[in-house]
Amino acid sequence: MADNLTKLVYKFGDGIAEGDRSMKAHLGGKGANLSEMSSIGLPVPPGFTINTDSCKYYSEHGGEWPANLDDQVRDGIDHIASQMGAGFGDSENPLLVSVRSGAAVSMPGMMDTVLNLGLNDEAVEGLASKTGNPRFAYDAYRRFIDMFGDVVMGVHHEYFEEAIEGLKQERGVSNDVDLTADDLKVLVERYKAIYQQHTGSMFPSDPYEQLKLSINAVFGSWDSERAVKYRTINKITGLIGTAVNVQAMVFGNMGEGSGTGVLFTRNPSTGENKLYGEFLVNAQGEDVVAGIRTPEDLSQMEAVFPPAYARLVEVTQQLEKHYRNMQDIEFTVQEGNLYILQTRNGKRTGAAAVRTAVEMVEEGLISTKEAVRDMVEPGHLDQLLHPGFENPDDYKSDVIAVGLPASPGAAVGKAVFSADEAEERHAAGEKVILVRIETSPEDVGGMHAAEGILTSRGGMTSHAAVVARGWGKPCVAGCGDVVIDYKAGKFTAGNVTVNDGDWVSINGTTGEVITGAQKLVAPELTGDFGTFMAWVDEYRTMKVRTNADAPADAAKAIEFGAEGIGLCRTEHMFFEGDRIDSVREMILAADLDARKAALAKLLPYQKEDFLGIFKAMAGKPVTVRLLDPPLHEFLPHGEADMKDMADKMGVSFDVVKAKVESLSEFNPMLGHRGCRLGVTYPEITEMQTRAIIEAAVELSQDGVEVLPEIMVPLIGTVEEFANQKAVIADTAEKVFEEKGARVDFLIGTMIEIPRAALTADQIAVEAEFFSFGTNDLTQMTFGYSRDDAGVFLPEYVGKKILPDDPFQSLDVTGVGQLVRMGTERGRDARTGLKVGICGEHGGDPRSVHFCFEVGMDYVSCSPFRVPIARLAAAQASLAAE
Amino acid sequence: MADNLTKLVYKFGDGIAEGDRSMKAHLGGKGANLSEMSSIGLPVPPGFTINTDSCKYYSEHGGEWPANLDDQVRDGIDHIASQMGAGFGDSENPLLVSVRSGAAVSMPGMMDTVLNLGLNDEAVEGLASKTGNPRFAYDAYRRFIDMFGDVVMGVHHEYFEEAIEGLKQERGVSNDVDLTADDLKVLVERYKAIYQQHTGSMFPSDPYEQLKLSINAVFGSWDSERAVKYRTINKITGLIGTAVNVQAMVFGNMGEGSGTGVLFTRNPSTGENKLYGEFLVNAQGEDVVAGIRTPEDLSQMEAVFPPAYARLVEVTQQLEKHYRNMQDIEFTVQEGNLYILQTRNGKRTGAAAVRTAVEMVEEGLISTKEAVRDMVEPGHLDQLLHPGFENPDDYKSDVIAVGLPASPGAAVGKAVFSADEAEERHAAGEKVILVRIETSPEDVGGMHAAEGILTSRGGMTSHAAVVARGWGKPCVAGCGDVVIDYKAGKFTAGNVTVNDGDWVSINGTTGEVITGAQKLVAPELTGDFGTFMAWVDEYRTMKVRTNADAPADAAKAIEFGAEGIGLCRTEHMFFEGDRIDSVREMILAADLDARKAALAKLLPYQKEDFLGIFKAMAGKPVTVRLLDPPLHEFLPHGEADMKDMADKMGVSFDVVKAKVESLSEFNPMLGHRGCRLGVTYPEITEMQTRAIIEAAVELSQDGVEVLPEIMVPLIGTVEEFANQKAVIADTAEKVFEEKGARVDFLIGTMIEIPRAALTADQIAVEAEFFSFGTNDLTQMTFGYSRDDAGVFLPEYVGKKILPDDPFQSLDVTGVGQLVRMGTERGRDARTGLKVGICGEHGGDPRSVHFCFEVGMDYVSCSPFRVPIARLAAAQASLAAE
Repeated sequence: MADNLTKLVYKFGDGIAEGDRSMKAHLGGKGANLSEMSSIGLPVPPGFTINTDSCKYYSEHGGEWPANLDDQVRDGIDHIASQMGAGFGDSENPLLVSVRSGAAVSMPGMMDTVLNLGLNDEAVEGLASKTGNPRFAYDAYRRFIDMFGDVVMGVHHEYFEEAIEGLKQERGVSNDVDLTADDLKVLVERYKAIYQQHTGSMFPSDPYEQLKLSINAVFGSWDSERAVKYRTINKITGLIGTAVNVQAMVFGNMGEGSGTGVLFTRNPSTGENKLYGEFLVNAQGEDVVAGIRTPEDLSQMEAVFPPAYARLVEVTQQLEKHYRNMQDIEFTVQEGNLYILQTRNGKRTGAAAVRTAVEMVEEGLISTKEAVRDMVEPGHLDQLLHPGFENPDDYKSDVIAVGLPASPGAAVGKAVFSADEAEERHAAGEKVILVRIETSPEDVGGMHAAEGILTSRGGMTSHAAVVARGWGKPCVAGCGDVVIDYKAGKFTAGNVTVNDGDWVSINGTTGEVITGAQKLVAPELTGDFGTFMAWVDEYRTMKVRTNADAPADAAKAIEFGAEGIGLCRTEHMFFEGDRIDSVREMILAADLDARKAALAKLLPYQKEDFLGIFKAMAGKPVTVRLLDPPLHEFLPHGEADMKDMADKMGVSFDVVKAKVESLSEFNPMLGHRGCRLGVTYPEITEMQTRAIIEAAVELSQDGVEVLPEIMVPLIGTVEEFANQKAVIADTAEKVFEEKGARVDFLIGTMIEIPRAALTADQIAVEAEFFSFGTNDLTQMTFGYSRDDAGVFLPEYVGKKILPDDPFQSLDVTGVGQLVRMGTERGRDARTGLKVGICGEHGGDPRSVHFCFEVGMDYVSCSPFRVPIARLAAAQASLAAE
Repeated sequence: MADNLTKLVYKFGDGIAEGDRSMKAHLGGKGANLSEMSSIGLPVPPGFTINTDSCKYYSEHGGEWPANLDDQVRDGIDHIASQMGAGFGDSENPLLVSVRSGAAVSMPGMMDTVLNLGLNDEAVEGLASKTGNPRFAYDAYRRFIDMFGDVVMGVHHEYFEEAIEGLKQERGVSNDVDLTADDLKVLVERYKAIYQQHTGSMFPSDPYEQLKLSINAVFGSWDSERAVKYRTINKITGLIGTAVNVQAMVFGNMGEGSGTGVLFTRNPSTGENKLYGEFLVNAQGEDVVAGIRTPEDLSQMEAVFPPAYARLVEVTQQLEKHYRNMQDIEFTVQEGNLYILQTRNGKRTGAAAVRTAVEMVEEGLISTKEAVRDMVEPGHLDQLLHPGFENPDDYKSDVIAVGLPASPGAAVGKAVFSADEAEERHAAGEKVILVRIETSPEDVGGMHAAEGILTSRGGMTSHAAVVARGWGKPCVAGCGDVVIDYKAGKFTAGNVTVNDGDWVSINGTTGEVITGAQKLVAPELTGDFGTFMAWVDEYRTMKVRTNADAPADAAKAIEFGAEGIGLCRTEHMFFEGDRIDSVREMILAADLDARKAALAKLLPYQKEDFLGIFKAMAGKPVTVRLLDPPLHEFLPHGEADMKDMADKMGVSFDVVKAKVESLSEFNPMLGHRGCRLGVTYPEITEMQTRAIIEAAVELSQDGVEVLPEIMVPLIGTVEEFANQKAVIADTAEKVFEEKGARVDFLIGTMIEIPRAALTADQIAVEAEFFSFGTNDLTQMTFGYSRDDAGVFLPEYVGKKILPDDPFQSLDVTGVGQLVRMGTERGRDARTGLKVGICGEHGGDPRSVHFCFEVGMDYVSCSPFRVPIARLAAAQASLAAE
């Protein structure tokens, strides 16, 4: 790349644009975009960008500027000044500018913004008279000295803070706004003194001097320790430096001919194709936001500023056409002239997103491909599938606690504290919210009966959260603000108490817990939704399956477009009705024969389950995971429950207690579970295989197409898999012989242990498919227990030690390496190996993108996330085009 | 590689050797070795090897033999026949041979051995008359039909088993040996019938036919499913096939001129340079092993077989000279002729190994390099460093249970069941064995007072095991056979009860628990040991450090040659004396100030610890790991203890209970521990850093050279490390300012979380050293909790799902990938990054080899394993030469 050291400065502004968006490498992302906006005729405040080559020269020449830079900067300032009709340092009409860094890639560690550069003792008077507001002018001046001192010269902001605090004490006021213009004049002098004390030189009154120092600070920040380290860690190479953007400040408070406003090009709630926004005359942007004055509806602007309004309407049409999306625009009118300060794709509700997408296609503005790729975020679809609150703003004062948004949607009901009560009240026609410290498989009946679930412990992948998402039922989980007292039949949050039977509302999309019965609105799937999802599937190449353990869930998922089951857990089936007794009998069995006898009782139930699921999924693949949890999960824990169990089983309490103790584990997550159980008790694997294969053969004999995939969980070594595969294959062969008929089926494995990903090449020699269990893989790769990490994960995200909760969005940097490695090594050993994902990440859009990049055949997620995954998968395909 | 299809058969036998050990690729490992032995003039039974190229030809030509093979095989048989003076199928002097497969790499899945090939209805009579033992001859014949049928023709062994069982029932006998020669003749006929029934053809009486079928079976087994899969999984490529070895059978039971024996060229117990062995006249090898007849001392053989004995003495000298090691030899004399059936390096005790090594150097037989490389196994040194039992064979009948050999050595004492009692009795001059279900840091005083420790739960890396190894104190851990009853003050093992105060002995090398006070012998470090270890260090390039938490341990380790501390755990220091009170005060603290106040009380203690350790390690690096365990480990668990604590702290019981509950975790191993604590409570990191740096500066001011390395545990992301590094660096800087003096120190991290290894390139940008914590890394990479895996790990090793317990010997295939990746990526990001290992594997010889291969700077292990690690490291260097 040859240095561009002839033309160093690229001007932009109404009608002029020396660069364009292709020039990111030389103008940085921000600079290229400003030129681009200007080039399509948008009235952006004029300015210029110093190219990255200048930065490179600066750092290679010990802080020298390239030969032409000073001249070209001065020329750039002249360009701004003439466009604005203002002058640098002018006491009547002062030109003020902002200075910002901006490399080709956005990067922390470089210089922040400096605003209002150009202010000095003369210019501040000009600003005061133009705005008729000396307080505003001096406040801007003192802020400029602070910002310049801190950001450009390294004078700690706290010194300036001390000065303003001191002055407030002297004046006996407690808020900054109570300081008068005269007070602020005093403050300006004190700030200048602080500046001089810490830099050893006077505050520069020459705007060129201010500008030159600021440009140098931007150049210098490229080589700051933080920026260099950031680039090293994130492997950002090939960049030569940062660009510098200098742009005119514009003011909406320069009298009655000025104003400021914000607008959406379409209604962001409904999607209606009509400008939607508000504006204020003689005001700054902050005034609109601060709510000191009530802004007027945008429709009134035509009457106040007719030419500016006409220009604005023109601009909005231009923008939608250029950016091919609904825009959210900030604008300022300075003395009759319209300036677009910012435009970006507008945030919108799910309903608006889908309607806008479909209508823009109908209007001929965009193609169906653009509709799918750019117009709707996968998360938008969530809103369309779940009930919401009629007016979420109204209930804010009734919010008593906030937990994790574990399963989206709104729910209202009477608080109940046990699964049994939930079922009873539900049977009596009441609506209930089940409130539990945490839930366990025994609560499933009551959870199903409830409108929504609230737990005080457990994370996004706790039992309550996973089950609720599976059903699309709202759930707020791990809400530590809530203290539950089962005995008293109440919970408290702060000083509010909710008693058994009191109305309560929960918002599973936000995690809010609200007193009383808030009004709900039902989800509405419009024709637009169907139209849109049909387009989605045209561009989608990766399959989407669902995680479902019951026929009803499977049917729901097919409605939402699922193409198979990626994870059918079999342990939930072990809890229903009387089955748990047989399971416990098996666990207590003294020898193999007794264990086999107990398992034989479970067989017909398991088979019934699979008959139902295979039928619901006729013609689609169904991945059945063999028993996964450790056996102690099936035993009671309290002494009373143990006694009950002993009575039921006809054994002594001591026998039950001894078994519970002998099976207890320090770290159950890393214990005797998954295929480790199958290795120790092959008879469990046999029984489950028999149930699956018998069901498959019988249905197949009835003409139902069945595609079973038997999945062995928690494989860490190929030998483990080979051991279990032999048991499965032998059992299946026996069933085929007994029935005199065969079905095709696959034997594969979860990849959820780091070692399995590392040795995927060995495992794929034996396994016919892989399914990444990224919940457990995340737990082990990070060394986080998802049941315990709630204590520090929020802090980790807050302190930016982690970008996100890795249980919600797949950690591409770490866990993702294992997923990629596992997929590649697996396919190296077995060409065309079928690979999918069945962890919670299968329904997370960003994770779906990653799965596509890795080349997975499918993702699998809970039924209500299937549309989301379909859209994310389609967008991933389009992103790769 | 050109095919070798001209010469296909390589003959060997007394004086003749057509191949040598360089020809492994063509003759396989076994064939090359047989030729080699022959080539140095050893009297091996004559035979020949068919090369691997023949196998390749066979498999590429649909089972055809290459043109010359048949002729050359017949020529080979003639060679054997003439050397043995016998004839194939001869009814007077029949030639019998064995047929074995043997590729260049040893490989399961290929054909097993066929013995006694050549027997038929005539030859069996010859064998009967030569041995004068018709029963022996017919037994050999029926075994041959069984073996040939099963191994060569695939007739299931169980069919033959059924036949012999049937015959035994008919004869009314229960043991095979009760069948007479005539019975066996009948059995031979029945076996032949079974053979015919299942193969559809007669049992081949032509020895050439038998041979040809066997050779084909060996060729065919190369492409068997099991063998192919084994090669795929283990990535064995570049081999063209298996060789076939055909060798004469020789018999020591052909009358009074024949015999058989075994010998060591030196005494395997003491190392004395004198032949040591035994022999039997007119007997087979099995007879020596079976103990039916009492063998005679080898010294008697000279009188019985003078020429054969003279030849044997010659051969032993030849063998020691050739193999440059003490040999363990099996020999047979057939009618006066000596045959060496097998020679291999002899197993020996540690004392013998060291003495032999030193003496063979003195005798000029080997170089010091060979002494270090080949003569002593690292494990041998263990025996030299710990007390043993005077006569381990004598106590076998008193063994009442076997647990894990958690810390080697023998110990004898009175059983006690609490740490307090151990301390009291020890103070009163008694010797005790501490018996606990498991130990915790609170038991450390009693553990130290005991001669040895016995636990009924926990694995090789449980608290008891780790602490005991650190002290070189014998420990048997996880002994599930032992049922402990604290209340009654006794333990039972089977039907034996050991009461408080009863004598008991434990063998930490074997895991045995023995009743009574068995006699001990103290370890004896001879001059040979010192001589040998000095040679070891000459060839060693990798450093060896120690894991030590106390000055006394550090001093011991230096005696054993440690070159620094690789892991100084700081949490043990939190338990001693009153410190635990301050720790608990910190945990209960309601806010930061209270927490800091409690930490301030701990500071002087921690500093004192470091002063001691730094002084003991003057001039050597000391890696200090910051606090690692979750805080709940410092709290009591029983209600009574909680009440005590509440009283002591002056808070209510409910406060303590609530804290214990709020800190409890489902999976503590994956919980709020390690650097996660430091992130949440930076004040803990500050206190520990201050203690380390203050101690270092003060000693350095006193002229002691201090090289501290501060290690942050449980890092998973570079951001975590950067967070803690900032706290450490800032605190150190403060101390330097306060003291007006500086010391050099490093800030680095444990790599013990899979994600840390995967992102080592990012972490090494910040970290100045890595130390692999392979205990936790193994737990997370496999998903095994070392506290719980004892339930299935023995089964896994037994079923060959795992080759070894991965907590004892590093899993090179899986965990090793992360270690290698972490090292390489770390060094890519930071040239010359210092890398070590501080997990338990640092003292395991095979793991030490791996660490050397990966290029680590050092390994660190418990003090008593330092000599072992030194030897393993030297051997690794020599292996790489």
